[in-house]
Amino acid sequence: MNKNYYAILMAGGVGSRFWPVSTQDYPKQFHDMLGTGHTLIQKTFHRLSKLIPKENIFILTNERYNDLVLEQLPEVTKKQVVLEPAMRNTAPCILYASLKIQKENPNAVMLVAPSDHWIEDEQSFSNNVQQAFEFCSKNKALMTLGIQPTFPNTGYGYIEYDKASTKLVKPVNQFREKPDYETARSFIEQGNFLWNAGIFMWSVNTVIEAFKTSKPELFKLFETGIPAYNTELEDDFIKINYPKAENVSVDYAIMEKSDNVFVIVAEFDWNDLGTWGSLYDKLAKDSHNNAILNAKSLAENAEGNIIRTNKGKLVVIDGLNDYIIVDKDDVLLIYPKSKEQDIKQVQQRLKAKYGN
Amino acid sequence: MNKNYYAILMAGGVGSRFWPVSTQDYPKQFHDMLGTGHTLIQKTFHRLSKLIPKENIFILTNERYNDLVLEQLPEVTKKQVVLEPAMRNTAPCILYASLKIQKENPNAVMLVAPSDHWIEDEQSFSNNVQQAFEFCSKNKALMTLGIQPTFPNTGYGYIEYDKASTKLVKPVNQFREKPDYETARSFIEQGNFLWNAGIFMWSVNTVIEAFKTSKPELFKLFETGIPAYNTELEDDFIKINYPKAENVSVDYAIMEKSDNVFVIVAEFDWNDLGTWGSLYDKLAKDSHNNAILNAKSLAENAEGNIIRTNKGKLVVIDGLNDYIIVDKDDVLLIYPKSKEQDIKQVQQRLKAKYGN
Repeated sequence: MNKNYYAILMAGGVGSRFWPVSTQDYPKQFHDMLGTGHTLIQKTFHRLSKLIPKENIFILTNERYNDLVLEQLPEVTKKQVVLEPAMRNTAPCILYASLKIQKENPNAVMLVAPSDHWIEDEQSFSNNVQQAFEFCSKNKALMTLGIQPTFPNTGYGYIEYDKASTKLVKPVNQFREKPDYETARSFIEQGNFLWNAGIFMWSVNTVIEAFKTSKPELFKLFETGIPAYNTELEDDFIKINYPKAENVSVDYAIMEKSDNVFVIVAEFDWNDLGTWGSLYDKLAKDSHNNAILNAKSLAENAEGNIIRTNKGKLVVIDGLNDYIIVDKDDVLLIYPKSKEQDIKQVQQRLKAKYGN
Repeated sequence: MNKNYYAILMAGGVGSRFWPVSTQDYPKQFHDMLGTGHTLIQKTFHRLSKLIPKENIFILTNERYNDLVLEQLPEVTKKQVVLEPAMRNTAPCILYASLKIQKENPNAVMLVAPSDHWIEDEQSFSNNVQQAFEFCSKNKALMTLGIQPTFPNTGYGYIEYDKASTKLVKPVNQFREKPDYETARSFIEQGNFLWNAGIFMWSVNTVIEAFKTSKPELFKLFETGIPAYNTELEDDFIKINYPKAENVSVDYAIMEKSDNVFVIVAEFDWNDLGTWGSLYDKLAKDSHNNAILNAKSLAENAEGNIIRTNKGKLVVIDGLNDYIIVDKDDVLLIYPKSKEQDIKQVQQRLKAKYGN
């Protein structure tokens, strides 16, 4: 295995559209959402470890999830868990982790990936990452994997690549934020638009140079910490300085501003598992298209539902179609799949009604 | 309080239309179905004890509910719990209990009543029972309380009384079994039909005479036990002989065959709490007509539901109308109110699918 290969897994999100299973104390990436016996972060770590040495995989997360990470990934050492003392979006933590890795290994090429996505074909994923790593080892490239869109999804960002390119690695024209439906349709028609899955690859030197150019103040803030990184002084430096960092995404901070951005069209099937509906799409169904996790069920006159309970709970439903039914200890949610985006707000309305 | 007043409470039923709350191990009458802090049998016992000495109230139930009765009614002694060793419908156990009471007090007048019904106005109930007791003390009457029907319910039996009678105590022409809708409508139009609530009153001598006349074999079977009743020999006699008794209802065994049957029109509001829907009718509702027991709820675009959970469970629903939502430890039921009668069969289908 190539010792220069590194990864940072983004594991600080909350996944509030998966309430009540995903909560601030126990977010989605730490749950076995697919009923496979493994949590999403375990699956992601395992997938990466086929190509990247385990000790080179860093987990970027919030302080409150430190114990969960160490518990679920026993092969990971404390120093691989990089804790953000404050929520500052993706750019600051990626820059910080990149500087740490650069100090450890200036020849590193690294991958940045979410910890909670679904990828079907692990071999194709490894192949694409390998291709990207090889390119990034030799070129000053900010690389991303783009997903071939299957429908005009308005929930994802898009990557527009150079239509003229016939190569595996294609120059990116621009990143496009979540479009409206008409725009998304035109993207699909044009053919050179891909979904942005938030998977990035680059050499540490190239990404740090990009920050230096596009976000000089952010770069300077974290540059002053270089003597401290990977030493006992690191914690104190980060606690004092991290909260000063600008709250900005890596897409906006460097990807949209650089002219050395490239994309490889992913050969694997991908799903961001962003909502109960997208999870439903990836689960096995019974003969009436009900996806049932953990429960024993009797579903009559009922189709297209996703049902998740604690192990072995008996669920009897009649006359319900396309519902999300989630039972978890002291919470029961029965919600139309068509309103899955509103689940995020349910918690606020509950707070307003019942207090904390 | 009149020492000749007795009651037997029928508490052997299973209430399977209230699954999953009511089960064979823990039936409806032992649950706080109304959210009042008292179980149905506790409410019934309390209601009767205003008129009838507590030590004269007997509970007729199945052996397996003996402990539940003694636990929920601590004022009741062991000898007041009369156990059926086999399910033989209402006639055998009423005859058996009547012979026991007659042996204790040959001047007894007694009431027979279900333990799991709802009665709003307890004072009116007491008045009506008092009136019946007084009549039965002086007359050889088989008395019942009839409920003034409010709509052509096809789920109840009806009592037809003599239209010409202007007295409080009216002679009964006949009992009518559950009618079809057209028949029920004609009953309502005729005006002299009442719902049969299964509440009977008579002197022990009169009811025993009625059994002797209408069901001589049944009478003979239990007559041979008279020397044993209320002694140490009773248990053995009953264990051997009770299972030999004919399986027949008291309505069919004596009421429909006797010509000394009378009715008093009840002055109280009554509900048999036979289904989730009839329970719903008697519960307090929120501003969207949802009846919520024990749960904390957020119900949006949701009307006419009945929700029951363990204490304090949070229930979030959207887009559900007229549903029964019951969550109980390891079972969740989400079922249309309009199909409440089918809940009985759900358990059989579950058994077929999952075994016992």
